[in-house]
Amino acid sequence: MNKQITKELLEIGAVQINLDTYFTWTSGLKSPIYCDNRLTMSYPKVRKNIARAFILMLEQDGFKPDVIAGCATAGISHAAWLSDLLGLPMVYVRSKPKGHGKGNQIEGASVEGKTVLVIEDLISTGGSSIEAAKALQQAGANILAVYSIFTYGLDKSKDAFLQANIAYNSITGFDELIQELIGSGELSEEEKNELLTFRESL
Amino acid sequence: MNKQITKELLEIGAVQINLDTYFTWTSGLKSPIYCDNRLTMSYPKVRKNIARAFILMLEQDGFKPDVIAGCATAGISHAAWLSDLLGLPMVYVRSKPKGHGKGNQIEGASVEGKTVLVIEDLISTGGSSIEAAKALQQAGANILAVYSIFTYGLDKSKDAFLQANIAYNSITGFDELIQELIGSGELSEEEKNELLTFRESL
Repeated sequence: MNKQITKELLEIGAVQINLDTYFTWTSGLKSPIYCDNRLTMSYPKVRKNIARAFILMLEQDGFKPDVIAGCATAGISHAAWLSDLLGLPMVYVRSKPKGHGKGNQIEGASVEGKTVLVIEDLISTGGSSIEAAKALQQAGANILAVYSIFTYGLDKSKDAFLQANIAYNSITGFDELIQELIGSGELSEEEKNELLTFRESL
Repeated sequence: MNKQITKELLEIGAVQINLDTYFTWTSGLKSPIYCDNRLTMSYPKVRKNIARAFILMLEQDGFKPDVIAGCATAGISHAAWLSDLLGLPMVYVRSKPKGHGKGNQIEGASVEGKTVLVIEDLISTGGSSIEAAKALQQAGANILAVYSIFTYGLDKSKDAFLQANIAYNSITGFDELIQELIGSGELSEEEKNELLTFRESL
């Protein structure tokens, strides 16, 4: 659990909780939690801490990627900063080919025979990052894992990664957020249960 | 003119010339020149030189941005590397709103009242980067300029930037490429004229 990043995401408003007035997601869903990790791009210190947290995860997992792949669009800048710290080549990958299937799905040099780490900013169902990872596999890459900044921790996403046989890890997420807010006294047990009930409904 | 970057784009195949067998662009157009600057992401040394070249341009133009805006999708990683070297906030901007107009066009923190440099990887007509710059203006930003890695140098794009009253500059481009290849003896005067005739046709 990365307490620092969890706190920083809260501080900059990249993650927000509102149990009085639910947020409306672009999908139309009403939710007590809102997450926009793209805000982190505008905070040089936070985005550097995120890149460092990814490096820590690589060390803990014992992974040594050849290439960093950013999931288009929100994962690209974080893949750029991580690849810069590591001095590694980078590509970006769309969850589906560009332009109604005529265009590329992977941009950058070939990943054939390369060991690739996939960077995503937010995991909900895991669908788009798994599609991206599969595209890289079809292009001959060996996928180390998908790493994200934040995950809603849905069983659906855990099952999807398991089924796709793709390793997955996240700097922080829904459960760490609740743990942090309970610890700081900003969330009651009752509010915690409301959040967990909401998550189960997803 | 950035001779080094022009050479490096040629070396890594980000820019290719073939007067025997024309390339087919995604649009279907047949062309003696092919440019895919997204390859530069996979070359840490080249992408760092590009970021430094942008900084040199800022110094020469006497510009001091508050925020770096990457044009989605191919400009994002270069905006990330530049913003990192400058320690500045970053956003990215789409040429049109996401998801059939329902979603955002700009991702990241507000640019209201900020002085913004827009980064694009390749300029042909300039259309999408001008749309991106206009979106930032509508969000209250003051646009310093659009900077790109490569430009085809079309009159169309020069007119478009003039009309939009947006400053524009590029690290290198079609004319610098021809100058480099003539200088190295890799291009004859006849081939140069064929390339210039092609460009006039765009």
